[in-house]
Amino acid sequence: MPELRKDLISQRWVITGTQTEEEFLASINPKPREEAEECFFCEGHESQTLPEIYSIRRYDTRSNTSGWQVRVVPSKSAVFKIEGEVGKVGRGIYDLMNNIGAHELIIESPQHVKNICELPIDQILTVLKVYQTRIRDLNNDERLKYVLIFKNQRPKSPFRYGHTHSQLAALPLTPKAVKDELLSSKEYYSYKERCLFCDIIRQEQRDKIRIVEENPDYIAFVPFATKFAFELAIMPKNHNADYCWESESSLKNLAQILKVSLARISTALKDPPLNYILHTIPYLRPRQGYWKTIREDYHWHIEVYPQISEVTGFEWGSGCHIQPLLPEICAKILRETK
Amino acid sequence: MPELRKDLISQRWVITGTQTEEEFLASINPKPREEAEECFFCEGHESQTLPEIYSIRRYDTRSNTSGWQVRVVPSKSAVFKIEGEVGKVGRGIYDLMNNIGAHELIIESPQHVKNICELPIDQILTVLKVYQTRIRDLNNDERLKYVLIFKNQRPKSPFRYGHTHSQLAALPLTPKAVKDELLSSKEYYSYKERCLFCDIIRQEQRDKIRIVEENPDYIAFVPFATKFAFELAIMPKNHNADYCWESESSLKNLAQILKVSLARISTALKDPPLNYILHTIPYLRPRQGYWKTIREDYHWHIEVYPQISEVTGFEWGSGCHIQPLLPEICAKILRETK
Repeated sequence: MPELRKDLISQRWVITGTQTEEEFLASINPKPREEAEECFFCEGHESQTLPEIYSIRRYDTRSNTSGWQVRVVPSKSAVFKIEGEVGKVGRGIYDLMNNIGAHELIIESPQHVKNICELPIDQILTVLKVYQTRIRDLNNDERLKYVLIFKNQRPKSPFRYGHTHSQLAALPLTPKAVKDELLSSKEYYSYKERCLFCDIIRQEQRDKIRIVEENPDYIAFVPFATKFAFELAIMPKNHNADYCWESESSLKNLAQILKVSLARISTALKDPPLNYILHTIPYLRPRQGYWKTIREDYHWHIEVYPQISEVTGFEWGSGCHIQPLLPEICAKILRETK
Repeated sequence: MPELRKDLISQRWVITGTQTEEEFLASINPKPREEAEECFFCEGHESQTLPEIYSIRRYDTRSNTSGWQVRVVPSKSAVFKIEGEVGKVGRGIYDLMNNIGAHELIIESPQHVKNICELPIDQILTVLKVYQTRIRDLNNDERLKYVLIFKNQRPKSPFRYGHTHSQLAALPLTPKAVKDELLSSKEYYSYKERCLFCDIIRQEQRDKIRIVEENPDYIAFVPFATKFAFELAIMPKNHNADYCWESESSLKNLAQILKVSLARISTALKDPPLNYILHTIPYLRPRQGYWKTIREDYHWHIEVYPQISEVTGFEWGSGCHIQPLLPEICAKILRETK
């Protein structure tokens, strides 16, 4: 039975017990797949996924058939379940709760495209609007506190893992990585009475050397202190804490900057695996009133992490990362990539 | 010029600029090594490393020749340098300092042994004493605040990367992962007036189901909420915040439990890559007086992380880990491993 458990020492929650011993051992030693195995994220294979939660499709087509543009389905290996109570309890000195939440896959194209940056801007725009729709819809569930959108892009993977898609995890808690950001931006705001992220954007525009792309609404830059080589931050230039508040015209510019920035990474680093994550504010409900200034002090953004080097004991033990190449050089290489 | 830079959003420091563009590109696309290439960590190759900082060797042998048991040398790809001032400065809104510190390699055997658990207990004991000696020695340098001992064990790597060794990073700051632990154990102590780690040990001894090994001085268990499958915590059963305060007889029991626990992981998971890290208290100097109770509320320990699954966007974006196999099952599998 899966559980959400809290590590008292690091204050992080983990999700555990999602597989049996047999399933786990099979997953770390996967059988080589048949060459002929088909991708069930492709159009025409709708019956091989779980029934769709939502889709953008031609008006004259039925759910779970062809004719869609973007399709949202539950993950078959869902680590969260939507039924039940959060049920926070103690077990001895430890804290745990049920794995209430949702784990959805957002299939970004009916064709077997491997990188989101290969899609036309209008198709990426549709994906970005689907993110908003799903976050808004899950807000109706009062047990949920946060929705994390993330992408594990594995262009060299066979089968559906190589088919462009994003994932959504809806959680009954605000995860530690987001809490840390909320706290430091709150601290900065109470000291400076300005948004930390807005100040970073202004600094980047003054320095210029770490910017990779810019358009009327967005800026993409290599942060001053990155965890990974060629990491990117993509931020709206106008202050906004909530991704769901972005207008369609703004999202079109986000689609544009995402496409060109990720294309630069794919070209420069020869199609590396990469992750990106979208950090927006937690769901705001009355009992979360202690985040009073959150709309003023937080700023939604996307972080892109190319995975080209190993994370070692030093990083796990210190929380500090070693990133051998200066961010300014990473930015220059990406800017100069055709 | 390498720099320590702070990310204002996550409050983490990163080390960057340790390689040039050419060096970096060569490191991510390494040339296949010659089969015949020799390991310069092996006895007889002393002149191929940088001159040794410290060694345990036969009384009638000279530095940088054969006859040693454990050898400490500076890393050739050192990310820290020992000369200069910490030099904290601002650059616009950003914070940075010089990469002052030390990066040392502790070669654990003159023979080409791949896993520390294959060494005799007395040899492991010598390694553990060398950890103490190096931490104590570096304490004389007032610029340094923390020493992190870590191991990246890669038994399947060719060349010296496969030769059993630990690493030491001496830092001009207390890293965030340690600060987070100090803060949560301090909070627990001020609420309970007991050490969090001591309470966890007592809970584990009551529950029994997550313990893998125990001897008179140490306990090795799979924590209640782990980041990685088959992760282990090894803790002294008697309260002690400072690794350097452990006696030789206690370290002998540490060598024993480390050997048998890591051997169980190697056997059960077929020689996986693994990391371990040693977390002890930061150097205590007068100006760090705000950690007044640190000797009461912190507890040194070792964390062992087998690397058998991928870290994805979900983990990087949330700080929460998904660990599919219940810790109780991991512990059972390790206990039943012969």
